[in-house]
Amino acid sequence: MATHKLLLLPGDGIGPEVMAQVKRVVAWLDQEGLASFAVEEDLVGGCAYDAHGAAISEAAMAKAKAADAILLGAVGGPKWANVPYEARPEAGLLRLRKDLALFANLRPALCYPALADASSLKREMVEGLDILIVRELTGGVYFGEPKTILDLGNGQKRAIDTQVYDTYEIDRIARVAFDLARTRRNKVTSSEKHNVMRSGVLWKEVVTAVHAQDYGDVELEHQLADSLAMQLVRWPKQFDVIVTDNLFGDILSDIAAMLTGSLGMLPSASLGAVDAQTGRRAALYEPVHGSAPDIAGRGIANPIAMIGSLAMALRYSFGMGAVADRIEAAIAGVLAAGKRTSDIRTAGASVIGTEEMGSAILSEL
Amino acid sequence: MATHKLLLLPGDGIGPEVMAQVKRVVAWLDQEGLASFAVEEDLVGGCAYDAHGAAISEAAMAKAKAADAILLGAVGGPKWANVPYEARPEAGLLRLRKDLALFANLRPALCYPALADASSLKREMVEGLDILIVRELTGGVYFGEPKTILDLGNGQKRAIDTQVYDTYEIDRIARVAFDLARTRRNKVTSSEKHNVMRSGVLWKEVVTAVHAQDYGDVELEHQLADSLAMQLVRWPKQFDVIVTDNLFGDILSDIAAMLTGSLGMLPSASLGAVDAQTGRRAALYEPVHGSAPDIAGRGIANPIAMIGSLAMALRYSFGMGAVADRIEAAIAGVLAAGKRTSDIRTAGASVIGTEEMGSAILSEL
Ligand SMILES: CC(C)[C@H](C(=O)O)[C@@H](O)C(=O)O
Ligand SMILES: CC(C)[C@H](C(=O)O)[C@@H](O)C(=O)O
Repeated sequence: MATHKLLLLPGDGIGPEVMAQVKRVVAWLDQEGLASFAVEEDLVGGCAYDAHGAAISEAAMAKAKAADAILLGAVGGPKWANVPYEARPEAGLLRLRKDLALFANLRPALCYPALADASSLKREMVEGLDILIVRELTGGVYFGEPKTILDLGNGQKRAIDTQVYDTYEIDRIARVAFDLARTRRNKVTSSEKHNVMRSGVLWKEVVTAVHAQDYGDVELEHQLADSLAMQLVRWPKQFDVIVTDNLFGDILSDIAAMLTGSLGMLPSASLGAVDAQTGRRAALYEPVHGSAPDIAGRGIANPIAMIGSLAMALRYSFGMGAVADRIEAAIAGVLAAGKRTSDIRTAGASVIGTEEMGSAILSEL
Repeated sequence: MATHKLLLLPGDGIGPEVMAQVKRVVAWLDQEGLASFAVEEDLVGGCAYDAHGAAISEAAMAKAKAADAILLGAVGGPKWANVPYEARPEAGLLRLRKDLALFANLRPALCYPALADASSLKREMVEGLDILIVRELTGGVYFGEPKTILDLGNGQKRAIDTQVYDTYEIDRIARVAFDLARTRRNKVTSSEKHNVMRSGVLWKEVVTAVHAQDYGDVELEHQLADSLAMQLVRWPKQFDVIVTDNLFGDILSDIAAMLTGSLGMLPSASLGAVDAQTGRRAALYEPVHGSAPDIAGRGIANPIAMIGSLAMALRYSFGMGAVADRIEAAIAGVLAAGKRTSDIRTAGASVIGTEEMGSAILSEL
């Protein structure tokens, strides 16, 4: 059995707490002989800044490049509100995404049957919901230049951010979305603001061309980002795969996540291109939720999104789809048995802590 | 009684149909001696392109500049999908906003008690909901330069959009938000992406400074735009006034609108600065909904957002708050009596058309 190089970057806030539960599942996988991991660990975010003065060290970047998969907890917190912009905790995460060319961010929004009542939306709106947001992750306004603040004098400043998209960037993310749609319900909704943004015009044009060339069998529709946000609230079950840019994807995936009842449930995968020579693909897996500094250190964070991120790693990086299914079934089983962490709002369930939730999932496995 | 110059720009799709109902209310105001209007009408959007080859003519722009208030229906539709970018229907609306310097876009999201069940959200989430989104409307990525598509050769293009914000633009919209909060529940939530965008850094800095200088009595909080979108779905009643930039405001106001059950309900006001000499203030009022080409011409569009926009004009442009209250009460009354247009999803209500809804509101007045 091949040994997989796994890099753990727990990060800040609740990151280390939820990562602790992942370590238990990794140990279980080893023990059962299901997989063999060479696990390394390093710092990212505010904790890396405290240790090295940068949101990620060069040594950690080197480990990240060598790893077969990275699991990241979360970064950020009020403690680092006043560090230099280039060293803010998020810069560590953004550098990982950019330097490893992780252009395809997959964010499933799945409503667990046991949690259909935890949503703010009516049960019939979310029961059976299964959306996959495919977000472009290495372009757009996140990385375009110029990105600066100019001092105009007289107390006036000018801030500038630049959204840049090239044809090839849109082409490759569209292909990821269409390929994934074929494994699901065969429908892609592409979203931009072509009525206001030139990048939206190019986005729509390229997605349409890729579809016409190679994916005529997949249903494609276009929705403006404002209208899509609205439709996500009005009738989310109309969607299968949604493909969109970095900034719209950031917002739309948080909405989709919240429809399912708790952000604490949802994992994500950020993937690079498959190397034609080696067959390798850089990959980082992380929860959609943030570092939640308000509840950090209290042992109450929900580890499900983090454990679900490990399941995604098994599926997308290690070809272990069956084991991933098993972990996901264990999560569903624990939820069906009425066990909840405190972020999930359902009546009459028993509320347990981070470690107990980890144990519950392990014993369900 | 002063005569108010009112310019009607019905626009495309359902625009003319809902504007027809506003004309009846305007006639009623005249008849009752409550107000005296000099009403003009012109084209904007696709219909203006068909007539003049531009999304708004210079003649219409001149009328707009001379008007005390503009009422606009909606612009756009698939018919104009292939017109040159500068002449697309939205360009007419964007030019009005920019040339009249309508920087402050007020979008109330109010849940009518009779419609609390029409929302996708559970009744307890939206009952009593009353949010005001204050959206910056003349800056940001909507208007920043460069905004272009470059041909890189080899089938590759590069699209560029630029978000630009100056201190004074953020300062003045923040003041609008704080002033309005004082007339409401005294709380402002400011939203941006300072962890990724330099314009977000400046936005947060300026809003914080304006607050410290002149509005210490108003509660201020900051939320990242992705997190705010999520919180709008999770627990919308935590918000009073939300202030945000042009692009985030576009998306967040559509979400907020949809929480209330139907986009067909919600009006908006776009205001310029008060001229220190004349006391005048340019103003445009329009529904939050679009031109809805799918239902245009069928006499089923909901005229409430358009009539509500007239009420906002009476309140903000003509100092007739009491009459505005009367119109809004008439709308609430008709809804309480169980009358609905087909866009509103409540069980057991009687569904009526655009003209009947207009008549119902008039007879309630
Ligand atoms: C932490 C932050 C930089 C990040 C983003 O904006 O991409 C987060 O919101 C996310 O969605 O992963
Ligand atoms: C029609 C379009 C240009 C406009 C916008 O993006 O501002 C609309 O969505 C709105 O919210 O008023």
